[in-house]
Amino acid sequence: MSRLFMFEKPLGMRDTLPDLYSRKQKIRTAIEDEMKRWGYQFLETPTLEYYETIGTNSAILDQQLFKLLDQQGHTLVLRPEMTTPIARVAASRLLKNNLPIRLAYDANVFRAQQREGGRPAEFEQIGVECIGDYTISADGEGIALMVSSLKESGLENFQISIGHVGFVHTFFLQILGTEERVEALTRFLYEKNYVGYREHVKGLALSSIDKQRLIDFLKLRGQSEIFELAYSLLENDQGREAVVELEQLWKIMTDYNLEEKVKFDLTLVSHMSYYTGILFEVYAGNVGFPIGNGGRYDMLLEKFGKATGATGFAIRIDRLLEALGDQSEKDPVTCVLFSPERRKEAYQYAKEQRESGKHIILQDINGVKDIDICTNYFDDIVFLVGKAGKEAEV
Amino acid sequence: MSRLFMFEKPLGMRDTLPDLYSRKQKIRTAIEDEMKRWGYQFLETPTLEYYETIGTNSAILDQQLFKLLDQQGHTLVLRPEMTTPIARVAASRLLKNNLPIRLAYDANVFRAQQREGGRPAEFEQIGVECIGDYTISADGEGIALMVSSLKESGLENFQISIGHVGFVHTFFLQILGTEERVEALTRFLYEKNYVGYREHVKGLALSSIDKQRLIDFLKLRGQSEIFELAYSLLENDQGREAVVELEQLWKIMTDYNLEEKVKFDLTLVSHMSYYTGILFEVYAGNVGFPIGNGGRYDMLLEKFGKATGATGFAIRIDRLLEALGDQSEKDPVTCVLFSPERRKEAYQYAKEQRESGKHIILQDINGVKDIDICTNYFDDIVFLVGKAGKEAEV
Repeated sequence: MSRLFMFEKPLGMRDTLPDLYSRKQKIRTAIEDEMKRWGYQFLETPTLEYYETIGTNSAILDQQLFKLLDQQGHTLVLRPEMTTPIARVAASRLLKNNLPIRLAYDANVFRAQQREGGRPAEFEQIGVECIGDYTISADGEGIALMVSSLKESGLENFQISIGHVGFVHTFFLQILGTEERVEALTRFLYEKNYVGYREHVKGLALSSIDKQRLIDFLKLRGQSEIFELAYSLLENDQGREAVVELEQLWKIMTDYNLEEKVKFDLTLVSHMSYYTGILFEVYAGNVGFPIGNGGRYDMLLEKFGKATGATGFAIRIDRLLEALGDQSEKDPVTCVLFSPERRKEAYQYAKEQRESGKHIILQDINGVKDIDICTNYFDDIVFLVGKAGKEAEV
Repeated sequence: MSRLFMFEKPLGMRDTLPDLYSRKQKIRTAIEDEMKRWGYQFLETPTLEYYETIGTNSAILDQQLFKLLDQQGHTLVLRPEMTTPIARVAASRLLKNNLPIRLAYDANVFRAQQREGGRPAEFEQIGVECIGDYTISADGEGIALMVSSLKESGLENFQISIGHVGFVHTFFLQILGTEERVEALTRFLYEKNYVGYREHVKGLALSSIDKQRLIDFLKLRGQSEIFELAYSLLENDQGREAVVELEQLWKIMTDYNLEEKVKFDLTLVSHMSYYTGILFEVYAGNVGFPIGNGGRYDMLLEKFGKATGATGFAIRIDRLLEALGDQSEKDPVTCVLFSPERRKEAYQYAKEQRESGKHIILQDINGVKDIDICTNYFDDIVFLVGKAGKEAEV
């Protein structure tokens, strides 16, 4: 092995050392438990999938996929997200009773990175999918469960933005006429580049009224007060359904007492192209990226042969940790240093302490080069060395 | 997407559906908690590593590695096991105080398969590594913790075989003279092909005394009674140290009261070529493969620039599940079917029930196509439909 590679990890790959791991695990468990209390069932799918099954449906840019060839010559991908694999499982094995199903996952996903020091190429997502339910209640439940999960993790200051890609698409199409032009304008929204958006609109061959409608669209941010403007921007009945859905959602949010946590932002769109309706993102504190996002994807299941509605969300554990800040609290560890003649006594002592839930390291004193470093390192140390009755507790 | 690929997964890749997942999770948690009580700290390493760092050191056959190229042209592998990545982390970041460190992991590992219906290509291992400790106490702790972990998972009937690759190697080399011939004979032990072993010995150009020693070697199975034969088979002091280690280990096993669970089998070797001393395997019930294995690997850390002793073990969750048999016990789920006019009441009811730890599904009745299937499906169902006061509990 060359020195270059001895300690190196591939671009965007990271180790999670014990302190961080234990914080992650606490958060993960708190959220998992909450999702289970809401009746969601956890499942696991393979890390590797066929490119043709998951890669092409997953709405992740092709250049971000980790690809490899299997021994039969098929292209495989490391799953870039979990919604598509779960749609595959649901369609093939779980959607039998014509009943909505509620599924959950906690999994690492993979997105190849181009630069050193950039985003992680592997990260953990915990999320849910409610499949087989077209009601706005299901969308509302997704948002409410995301709020509740984040609260269970200990997060208090966060805000959810809710949009509707169906509204954006219909409204833009009314004015712009072609999918190509809709896509060109929508790209500014992806990038949250509103200056670019305004410039682009200015340059379009449209009436000044239509240009004004596209500019006024950027004002569709707020709470229930946006509905009036949203209706007025539409030139016909198309698109009204989306606003009705948002009104229903607002009612649901108030029933959940979530008025403080949510606001509408109809300029919200997503790089996940499978979304079809209500979608949302959550931001917290100083974290520059959403710590979670979700939405409705009513066309994805059809690709797996079962046309039905679905909605879900995912929380990124790394960003949630960042939002929670440094809250390290380690379990105290006692080290029992023993010499071989008192080994049995040490085992018995450790057994009793462990049975009461304590964390006990049993360490043969012959395995320790520097006793001082050892006694300083642990929260508590017990010596069982030499003749019985001579132990000292430091 | 072609129909061929719609539901397919790559060779050896599997979905873990909710019932199995929840059994896995119970086992995983029970074992993790026990490992923590023994002072082991969990950590996580990336799924992808450089081939030159992990692939070539990992002792897994090259043809079993999943390989891919990154955008810089380096070969990456999906980690085939966890001991080598943990050795990398320990050497680069954790072995600072010259103190033994105790690390643990619960991770999926990857081994490419050649055939349909064969072994899984991705499976979960939970295990520990004790790094920086050459004492036999550390070997003994590994075995004792494996026993304790398996008991915590609910397994009762299992047996641990303990061998010593150092003994086998030294003894074979005494008689056979060259590494090449040692390896040829050792291969029969890997395959547990004792008939082939005897045939091979018969055909060797050796004295009848030496041939008999190689045949008698196969008798080195049992408990403390094997030591006498082991010593007598050696022609000089080389190899005695290994037997002394096994004697010490036996004493440790009796101090842990594990005489019933362990036996020696000096014919035990491993395909993991990094093992250097005591090694062990655990078998249970009708499971045809070991559900766990471990051993000492005193040369691996040196490859990462820190020469020090280490020992560890891993348990395979899939095989442990198989050994435990069908023990499905699902958490009961109540479904609350509500109509929109009673949504707020339904939310309040669910909130209270969830706070008491119950699993409650809130389902808008408009999202259910067949109410009968729904009422039959859940353990318990609560209707909150129509005017308040008219709910029925079924």
